[in-house]
Amino acid sequence: MEIDLKTLAQQVGGRLDGPADLRIDGVAGVEHAGPGQCTYVAHPRYLAALATTRAAAVLLVEGVESPIPAVRVEDPARAFLLLLEHFAMPRAELFPPGIHPSAVIDPSAVLGTDVHVGANAVIGPGCSVGDRSVVGATSVLLHDVEVGADCLLYSGVQLREKTVVGHRVILHCGVVLGSDGFGFAPTPTGYHKIPQIGRVVVGDDVEIGANVCVDRATAGETVIGAGSKIDNLVQIAHNVRIGSRTAISAQTGIAGSCTIGDDVVVGGQVGLADHLQIGDRVRIGAKSGVSNDLDDDATVSGIPTRPHRDWRRQQAHIARLERYASEITALRRRVEALEKETGAAPTENS
Amino acid sequence: MEIDLKTLAQQVGGRLDGPADLRIDGVAGVEHAGPGQCTYVAHPRYLAALATTRAAAVLLVEGVESPIPAVRVEDPARAFLLLLEHFAMPRAELFPPGIHPSAVIDPSAVLGTDVHVGANAVIGPGCSVGDRSVVGATSVLLHDVEVGADCLLYSGVQLREKTVVGHRVILHCGVVLGSDGFGFAPTPTGYHKIPQIGRVVVGDDVEIGANVCVDRATAGETVIGAGSKIDNLVQIAHNVRIGSRTAISAQTGIAGSCTIGDDVVVGGQVGLADHLQIGDRVRIGAKSGVSNDLDDDATVSGIPTRPHRDWRRQQAHIARLERYASEITALRRRVEALEKETGAAPTENS
Amino acid sequence: MEIDLKTLAQQVGGRLDGPADLRIDGVAGVEHAGPGQCTYVAHPRYLAALATTRAAAVLLVEGVESPIPAVRVEDPARAFLLLLEHFAMPRAELFPPGIHPSAVIDPSAVLGTDVHVGANAVIGPGCSVGDRSVVGATSVLLHDVEVGADCLLYSGVQLREKTVVGHRVILHCGVVLGSDGFGFAPTPTGYHKIPQIGRVVVGDDVEIGANVCVDRATAGETVIGAGSKIDNLVQIAHNVRIGSRTAISAQTGIAGSCTIGDDVVVGGQVGLADHLQIGDRVRIGAKSGVSNDLDDDATVSGIPTRPHRDWRRQQAHIARLERYASEITALRRRVEALEKETGAAPTENS
Repeated sequence: MEIDLKTLAQQVGGRLDGPADLRIDGVAGVEHAGPGQCTYVAHPRYLAALATTRAAAVLLVEGVESPIPAVRVEDPARAFLLLLEHFAMPRAELFPPGIHPSAVIDPSAVLGTDVHVGANAVIGPGCSVGDRSVVGATSVLLHDVEVGADCLLYSGVQLREKTVVGHRVILHCGVVLGSDGFGFAPTPTGYHKIPQIGRVVVGDDVEIGANVCVDRATAGETVIGAGSKIDNLVQIAHNVRIGSRTAISAQTGIAGSCTIGDDVVVGGQVGLADHLQIGDRVRIGAKSGVSNDLDDDATVSGIPTRPHRDWRRQQAHIARLERYASEITALRRRVEALEKETGAAPTENS
Repeated sequence: MEIDLKTLAQQVGGRLDGPADLRIDGVAGVEHAGPGQCTYVAHPRYLAALATTRAAAVLLVEGVESPIPAVRVEDPARAFLLLLEHFAMPRAELFPPGIHPSAVIDPSAVLGTDVHVGANAVIGPGCSVGDRSVVGATSVLLHDVEVGADCLLYSGVQLREKTVVGHRVILHCGVVLGSDGFGFAPTPTGYHKIPQIGRVVVGDDVEIGANVCVDRATAGETVIGAGSKIDNLVQIAHNVRIGSRTAISAQTGIAGSCTIGDDVVVGGQVGLADHLQIGDRVRIGAKSGVSNDLDDDATVSGIPTRPHRDWRRQQAHIARLERYASEITALRRRVEALEKETGAAPTENS
Repeated sequence: MEIDLKTLAQQVGGRLDGPADLRIDGVAGVEHAGPGQCTYVAHPRYLAALATTRAAAVLLVEGVESPIPAVRVEDPARAFLLLLEHFAMPRAELFPPGIHPSAVIDPSAVLGTDVHVGANAVIGPGCSVGDRSVVGATSVLLHDVEVGADCLLYSGVQLREKTVVGHRVILHCGVVLGSDGFGFAPTPTGYHKIPQIGRVVVGDDVEIGANVCVDRATAGETVIGAGSKIDNLVQIAHNVRIGSRTAISAQTGIAGSCTIGDDVVVGGQVGLADHLQIGDRVRIGAKSGVSNDLDDDATVSGIPTRPHRDWRRQQAHIARLERYASEITALRRRVEALEKETGAAPTENS
């Protein structure tokens, strides 16, 4: 995948500002790039690092001096993205079409064309996998699982019975879809399990991070809407419904029957109580604890959450509590002195 | 599993209030139910949704008008639970008795009658699996693992050496039991690993959620008591002892050597510091950080935890900090004015 | 591995204070030890438990009366560690050298001498595994993965392409190294995936807990430095760099591009925002939310974090808010009384 700097400039639509035949064999950030790699500087604060970088070349805006060969572009971050795509290992190299002989595939399962099934993967009765999709090594599709076309299921993925996965979905290692929801009826002798007979439905273009758990609905569906992106180690409980293009950061947990809108952004380690209605375009700060419904476009933080601006002011007040306490003490003494001065008795004990 | 409404009414002990021959092929919540499904309304707040439901029938108390065919019952939620049990896929359909030929079972392992061992599962030396238990596809029982009767281990479960699992236990996908505790002795040149040679013992009727980790004891046992239920992505450290019928919500972490009583309820994303004694029937609010022992029947919230009532009052005070700060400023000005008026010098600088 | 008490005393360098031929077949804490086991008491607070222990013998300092046979040592905790090492099951017993016939190993993979590859493990093209290392059952090394010598990868471990693991590394069940970082470029029609083409590099003597996720770098490397120890269910995002001998407790999450120093100690359920610089020997309290860089030797707590001492004082102030509010009310009344007394008008409305 090595290219010369002239080709690189053409690929990113930039102006060559260095030797045309310079060989570039990879990309990296400015601080950690090595010889032969192309880096980028998208913000003036990284210009200092450019002076000492070991990179062979840099993507840079016009008008900024560069100590190393450069390709001049309007948007270095966007150009870098194009280079990442160039240097990415093609999916077909990692996962060439074909069924590994060690995979266990039930005769009733239906596989599309050019599907990859990795070593020791297991595809159970009634399952289907769409064209060009990948089922990674040791992954398990239990029973009546539907996976669309152009999906990428890495290794160690567990899809419980009746799970439905759309097209172009990426499921990272260790993802569990369709585990039983946490539903128990208390009885005098202990908990009675409430059967969880619904399913999980994942829309097109969804990406779900490593070791994420999505529970099946008690009845009906737990839904992850099209284009939503879920980071590692997130917990999504039974009957949750997540809209489209919503992004959820790592280790967040969403309790049962929450409905989350479109284009929502949830920070890391957030918790949502059950049965909440979260509107569209809501933004929830990291580590927040949400216990109330949130209207469209709300931006909230804190445990429990409040509008982000209020939360910042409260944090400032909390940081000043020592001063407030001192002022109260000082005021009490001054009031005592005034009372002595004027001969007034205190109106009551504080 | 399709039934007619008359049979359904008989199954849930209700009164038929609709056509006897109406076919019902599933169940779902009132908002998401489709044609052919039976839903329920257990709370007046869902009556509005009943007007627009697509469900074919509803479980409902007497005396409430229904726009669709109904079965009249005293406790619609309980009747719905009976229907969930009716429509649940029988375990034997998903996991028929038998050993998949791709499973790897050590000759020294002992399997009971009617055991299911899934594809590519691994059962190591000295292991035993009780009658009618299921070991899901790709699950691994490492060495000297004991699993009781009527257990259900889904796929991708990892049971380390010497783990003991009781009867009727459910372990969801990705559960890890018996991983090493996080124990290291600091030395001048770095951490020295403390061997973790104990084991994990899981009582009867326990259910453990997807991707939960339970560490083995350093020496002795980490214990999950009978009837306890643990949600997804929970961390239970070495030497923890959890009593009976205790429920722990998702993403909670319990540090080493904690002892937790019976009938405790722990919210999601809670953290417990190490070596705590938590009494019976304690309730811990979501996202709490527990750093002290808790007596029987305590109900606590917050970081650090305090009695739930105190926590609520403190939250109210925090929400009023802006006002308190304004009042302090106003009082200072009034005291200054009084001091001017009376000719008193301030007793000290605030 | 049973030994007599005389041999035990020799092994821990202690003085025999009991019958030389007493048989000891295991070890456990003082409260849970059973007959035949040796326990220890390292702190006077556990002496009461010694009176009722069922243990056969105890490691104890000189000069303290013991109701059971004892071995007298200077440091009972250290002596107990030596016993744990004695009674630990040898690694070769759990994982004897050899390749299980069900393992799938690409012909291009290179395995050192005395390697153990467990049942149904998968080692892909271009991978290498060093001498005496263990690849547990069902674990997957995807492509061009390098594992050093004397490593222990338990079952269900997933190593994505190009991951590099040093020597003497322990990876617990369910660990995922090299999953894609959570990187998306927003566009008017939704998120565009930013290819994650870097890798994960794990130093020598690292231990990583069960179900931990470490994302590969966007470009370049995500690094876990030598001797660092990571507890269960931790999330480490793309481009994070962790120094040497740093310990991270369970369920902590470190967002993208953070740099963490050497000898840092991070509590459980901590969150770090992205792009932070954390110095050497920093200590971060459990459940903290870090949103700023931290200098060497800082000790912090809270959400957001502040110096631990300040955090404790703020917590104390928060606990006193009820009192402060009462004092403000009382002061207002006394000031009103004074204003009445002196005929002064309030300077402004509070």
